[in-house]
Amino acid sequence: MTTKIYLPESELPTHWYNVAADMPNPPAPYLGPDGRPVPPEAMLAIFPETLVMQEMSSERWIEIPAPVREALTLWRPSPLYRARRLEQLLKTPAKIYYKNEAVSPAGSHKPNTAVAQAYYNREAGIRRLSTETGAGQWGSSLALAGQMFGLDVRVYMVRVSYEQKPYRRSMMQTWGAEVFASPTDMTESGRKVLAADPDSPGSLGIAISEAVEEAASRPDTNYALGSVLNHVLLHQTIIGLEARRQLELAGDYPDMIFAPCGGGSNFGGLAFPFFADKAAGREVRLVAVEPASCPTLTRGVYAYDFGDTAGLTPMMKMYTLGHDFMPPGIHAGGLRYHGDSALVSQLYHEGLIEATAVAQLETFAAGVMFAQSEGIIPAPESCHAVAAAIRAARECAQSGETKTLLFNLSGHGHFDMAAYDRYLRGELTDYDYPESAIRASLAHLPQVG
Amino acid sequence: MTTKIYLPESELPTHWYNVAADMPNPPAPYLGPDGRPVPPEAMLAIFPETLVMQEMSSERWIEIPAPVREALTLWRPSPLYRARRLEQLLKTPAKIYYKNEAVSPAGSHKPNTAVAQAYYNREAGIRRLSTETGAGQWGSSLALAGQMFGLDVRVYMVRVSYEQKPYRRSMMQTWGAEVFASPTDMTESGRKVLAADPDSPGSLGIAISEAVEEAASRPDTNYALGSVLNHVLLHQTIIGLEARRQLELAGDYPDMIFAPCGGGSNFGGLAFPFFADKAAGREVRLVAVEPASCPTLTRGVYAYDFGDTAGLTPMMKMYTLGHDFMPPGIHAGGLRYHGDSALVSQLYHEGLIEATAVAQLETFAAGVMFAQSEGIIPAPESCHAVAAAIRAARECAQSGETKTLLFNLSGHGHFDMAAYDRYLRGELTDYDYPESAIRASLAHLPQVG
Repeated sequence: MTTKIYLPESELPTHWYNVAADMPNPPAPYLGPDGRPVPPEAMLAIFPETLVMQEMSSERWIEIPAPVREALTLWRPSPLYRARRLEQLLKTPAKIYYKNEAVSPAGSHKPNTAVAQAYYNREAGIRRLSTETGAGQWGSSLALAGQMFGLDVRVYMVRVSYEQKPYRRSMMQTWGAEVFASPTDMTESGRKVLAADPDSPGSLGIAISEAVEEAASRPDTNYALGSVLNHVLLHQTIIGLEARRQLELAGDYPDMIFAPCGGGSNFGGLAFPFFADKAAGREVRLVAVEPASCPTLTRGVYAYDFGDTAGLTPMMKMYTLGHDFMPPGIHAGGLRYHGDSALVSQLYHEGLIEATAVAQLETFAAGVMFAQSEGIIPAPESCHAVAAAIRAARECAQSGETKTLLFNLSGHGHFDMAAYDRYLRGELTDYDYPESAIRASLAHLPQVG
Repeated sequence: MTTKIYLPESELPTHWYNVAADMPNPPAPYLGPDGRPVPPEAMLAIFPETLVMQEMSSERWIEIPAPVREALTLWRPSPLYRARRLEQLLKTPAKIYYKNEAVSPAGSHKPNTAVAQAYYNREAGIRRLSTETGAGQWGSSLALAGQMFGLDVRVYMVRVSYEQKPYRRSMMQTWGAEVFASPTDMTESGRKVLAADPDSPGSLGIAISEAVEEAASRPDTNYALGSVLNHVLLHQTIIGLEARRQLELAGDYPDMIFAPCGGGSNFGGLAFPFFADKAAGREVRLVAVEPASCPTLTRGVYAYDFGDTAGLTPMMKMYTLGHDFMPPGIHAGGLRYHGDSALVSQLYHEGLIEATAVAQLETFAAGVMFAQSEGIIPAPESCHAVAAAIRAARECAQSGETKTLLFNLSGHGHFDMAAYDRYLRGELTDYDYPESAIRASLAHLPQVG
């Protein structure tokens, strides 16, 4: 009656899995302002060549460098859990497994790519990384990774989060990063915003502009992104590769897999390695779980759009709600993204993966149920996967089916207790989303070709 | 080059180790107000018989009930880490190992005894547990354990912490506990305090009185304590038992062991199983690490004293600074205790274990160094053990000795980032302690016999 399945460090995956190799059609190219595919060289201003190569690669397996593997062993392989207490609570015949990514020092799956990005940048002679962060999960992961590889890290943290979430800020500073409340007066983008509104609360879009501007203007500095891009999803596939091996040790294979989906690295990280099996004919359902209040896959359109609010990034073919769509202030900050990874979007468009949306109250109810049975208090993002898995387990209780379910417990909620507090006090609400709001932002999609 | 040593769940210890069996002299009895040994029956008003038997037992091995073992497997066996990055940073020839107790859902070692206490109380027909908490580590551990065994939990949380640390409170509530800001108007002790001072910030002493009063006055309710008592230390020995086996798998044995010491369960939990080896003639140094601002072992006296401020508990023979000693407001709240476990005190008095004191700034410097090398941000309590291990590792770097060091990383600091923030801003200080302050509180020791 084992609860946790560990892999020895000797079984830490040696290669990442690149889903592009098994997609029926090659990934749609990123487009520049002229509507033509962005050449790799254009990305070199802010990314090292190795990451740009990974971004464009169609190789199935990409080797994980030894120093990255060594860094990952600080917390990996992460444990796979059988959620026996949750199963009992639900009186379900389903088997529920979850991959526990909350064990990383930063508390989520984000450091999996942060250490890889820090390593490749250091190898390229870069001394400094700049990035943005909202709630702080990504910023703290990059702070940790920068510290491990001797890089300075500068984090532009959305001002309202900087003030409301001082503990994530302290975490980044403890790991040696410099953290600035964005907008700052250190960049042109920041100064422009402050000139118009000296009390601007900031936004992720503004913070991205500041971080990219710093990286583009300094040869010793690069930019690092925590989701969306192909190389980020690639680095996260270590989650699914480990999980597949752990389930094999448990003598099991999942019927359904659930992961939260914002920019796509959480979902891609767990699901893509199983997509390889699916492409080879094995039956497995891969379900991306998104917030009902930011329903990119379930209510957006598949079209070229910008990755950021200001329209500075290349255009990516993806499911989008429009780049100026403003999702309501739900607590799953990591899922408040208007678009989605191009890889995830294309697989969804081709009917190879599924998506479902869950409203905020259901996610917190699931999080509390999980905490009361399995102990761990999940991050609000992770609660989305918990909720979807609970739905499936309940269906099994109805139908009597003995399905095997797997979900990504992508992070803990230790820095999100204010959200739980509001939920327990009955202060949280769901957000009703009129179709007209989505149509309005979709009207601003860029014209391509 | 393994970083983490895991034990399979099948190797979870089956018995706790009772150090009383190997002590050269039997533990000094607890004394009642009349100066005579407290009979077991006197404790039955607030504790179940099984725990009272454990409190008095001299059996070397006490079996862990199957349901307790099952509950423990939610996070145990906990990993043992080799701190290779810290070793490199210190350029020390010493090997540094740490037991990572931060992996429990509540984030510290406290749930090890909480689940055992919840189980035994449920078996005794108890429906409800009451307890006190300061910073919240113990309250959240008992909330978790109560949820796992179907017991209601009521936590009297010191008012000032209740207001300043709302996230620990939310954590307890997420696990289903009721949390009250103490002093409350629900108990006689609380009402008395409020009558004198309606704005009382509360204290651990007052909260203990409220929790004990509730337990003593309701037959369906018992009291649970998170440290100090023999049965609590007994339950924590699972830490050292696992660590000893893990070191054996790594082909190592420690020369020196360090653990934070407040009430004693952190230290006893890791060190006692190695004391068994020491009693059998093996050479191993066991070092209790306490705050310089609450220097119970290093500057207190060995005498009978009360366990609480108000003098309601039996008298225990222990190292004490006097029961009305008021330690300064350091951030390691779990170590702010005037006394110490009777077992730890007696072993120290007989020269079988050692003690050292570390000042606040050194503990935080050690915590930051640990976070920057090993990733995990330690709890302020745990920083004391980190600091002592770093001292020893530096001595090895000087002398060239290749000692093997082991310490207890008893918890993470996710709910203590405000303390790190103050440290990084340079706002923390050490506390200079005039001998006269200690002499003043020692003048109030109770007269015995």
